Amino acid sequence: MAILLIRQDGKTSQWLNAFKSQASQIECFDYNEPHPKETITMALVWKQPHGLFEQYKNLKCVASMGAGVDFIFEDPSFHQELLMTRVVDPLLITDMEEFVTAQVYAYMKGLYQYHSQQSFSLWQQNPYLRKKDITIGIMGMGVLGSATAKALSDQGFNVLGWSNSKKQIEGITTYEKVDLDLFLEKTNVLVCLLPLTPDTNGILNESLFSKLPRGAYLIHVARGPHLVGEDLIQSIDKGQMCGAAIDVFPTEPLDTKSPFWGHSKIHITPHCASISSPESVVAQIVVNYNRLTSHQPLLNQVDTLKGY
Amino acid sequence: MAILLIRQDGKTSQWLNAFKSQASQIECFDYNEPHPKETITMALVWKQPHGLFEQYKNLKCVASMGAGVDFIFEDPSFHQELLMTRVVDPLLITDMEEFVTAQVYAYMKGLYQYHSQQSFSLWQQNPYLRKKDITIGIMGMGVLGSATAKALSDQGFNVLGWSNSKKQIEGITTYEKVDLDLFLEKTNVLVCLLPLTPDTNGILNESLFSKLPRGAYLIHVARGPHLVGEDLIQSIDKGQMCGAAIDVFPTEPLDTKSPFWGHSKIHITPHCASISSPESVVAQIVVNYNRLTSHQPLLNQVDTLKGY
Repeated sequence: MAILLIRQDGKTSQWLNAFKSQASQIECFDYNEPHPKETITMALVWKQPHGLFEQYKNLKCVASMGAGVDFIFEDPSFHQELLMTRVVDPLLITDMEEFVTAQVYAYMKGLYQYHSQQSFSLWQQNPYLRKKDITIGIMGMGVLGSATAKALSDQGFNVLGWSNSKKQIEGITTYEKVDLDLFLEKTNVLVCLLPLTPDTNGILNESLFSKLPRGAYLIHVARGPHLVGEDLIQSIDKGQMCGAAIDVFPTEPLDTKSPFWGHSKIHITPHCASISSPESVVAQIVVNYNRLTSHQPLLNQVDTLKGY
Repeated sequence: MAILLIRQDGKTSQWLNAFKSQASQIECFDYNEPHPKETITMALVWKQPHGLFEQYKNLKCVASMGAGVDFIFEDPSFHQELLMTRVVDPLLITDMEEFVTAQVYAYMKGLYQYHSQQSFSLWQQNPYLRKKDITIGIMGMGVLGSATAKALSDQGFNVLGWSNSKKQIEGITTYEKVDLDLFLEKTNVLVCLLPLTPDTNGILNESLFSKLPRGAYLIHVARGPHLVGEDLIQSIDKGQMCGAAIDVFPTEPLDTKSPFWGHSKIHITPHCASISSPESVVAQIVVNYNRLTSHQPLLNQVDTLKGY
């Protein structure tokens, strides 16, 4: 009975340390170090190299180190007999709420534009928006989407929510899958917090942007492949979209040749909206590992048929 | 019985138009055009040239076009027999609340720093703050200060208030004049919303900054002369302050030679936090003009002994 950590970015050691300090009785291995394969019952992964799972005959559960699980579904060695879990971390939720709120206000008050003007010593007042002027539409009303919608609504923003199945949240007008167009036509600040599934891959494209009111703004904090980058640039350059704040990209770090870097209306952050901290996540993993060992139902289990 | 408009920035015509559309029965004159001086009973002013008031023997009231009145006190032709009013505009209040909130979040999430990194195509995650990590101290608990403190507190921020006379506001710990040091030692995001008086001129100086916890941040949205610019730069360069967002300057537009423009930790906005719109202010002026004419007490009158 042991846990295998699989991630390729060299950050495995801080995760191993978190296990050591919080649950030294649990055996943990870095997949790059020698380890007894037959002891592994849980794999804790982040954007793992594909094809490894089938080498572990006693593997029962693949746990994501974050809220996203798309990269597990994409791995052909993940199979239906394996359980899958994701992280639902109160700090991840707080961070996402606060990050999206920050981007909404920065957009309303034109802070990025003033920051650009500063580099030219340009003193120029620009038009701005008030809270009451905008309607924020959240795509994806899972744990992060619902919490962000609620936080913005509690602050007095007008908030809409769209999700596969209709949600009931006080103060928020919600739409279900078939009502996407109705949702889009009322939204002028679109926030993407969808899970990445075959249905949502490339959903942020020109056709979708064209259904928003002219001059809408995008805040994208979900997964890189939701967005068709060239469609966004075209929509901005035509004036259909007025700009975007993007935190996630299909390949990270974002290629220095990407046209996003130099676009004055696209504001890039380096996937920093909400980052799992080993300390806070490992506590959850330990709970689930103990539940797995004692054959209890797991927490934050992913429905592998729905894909989220 | 007539109103005289005095401002030097060439924006008088939109104010005259607002009077025409809202109260065409009231006579209004641009001070640069010929006008019958004995008819003037109210002067509506913004940073007026000094020395004019004594030419108007029937002048009874000088009304500021905005929330600030410091430039009226500075005019030697303003005398104690004149009444003084300022603007208390719900939109000014909303704008200030939202602008300060925007600057607080931009600081917490490091948005300016990411925007600078973007110009170098630099993908680098930086440390950030959560709402719970900061204590916002508001200097000046007048109409704008109190409303901003309340708005931030309602959003879950920890907020302190400091003012000449102690205020009672639910959810906010308040300090009176003599307790400035106690207020400062608990504040790590300092927001200046003081009125400009001889007492507060230059109050944002090295001695004050040194009483804040190391690495504090300044959001200055009051009046330019509150801040000793070189003291701020020194305090930032020594690490006592971690940066500042500044919206107001002793001379506006800010001189292109100012060292603020090129300082990476000072974020400049062009006095845009909260701007009186003629349409919304003229309605108040008309009410006060009618009260003046019928010898009723004026609204939003300034205590000319206290200076605010």
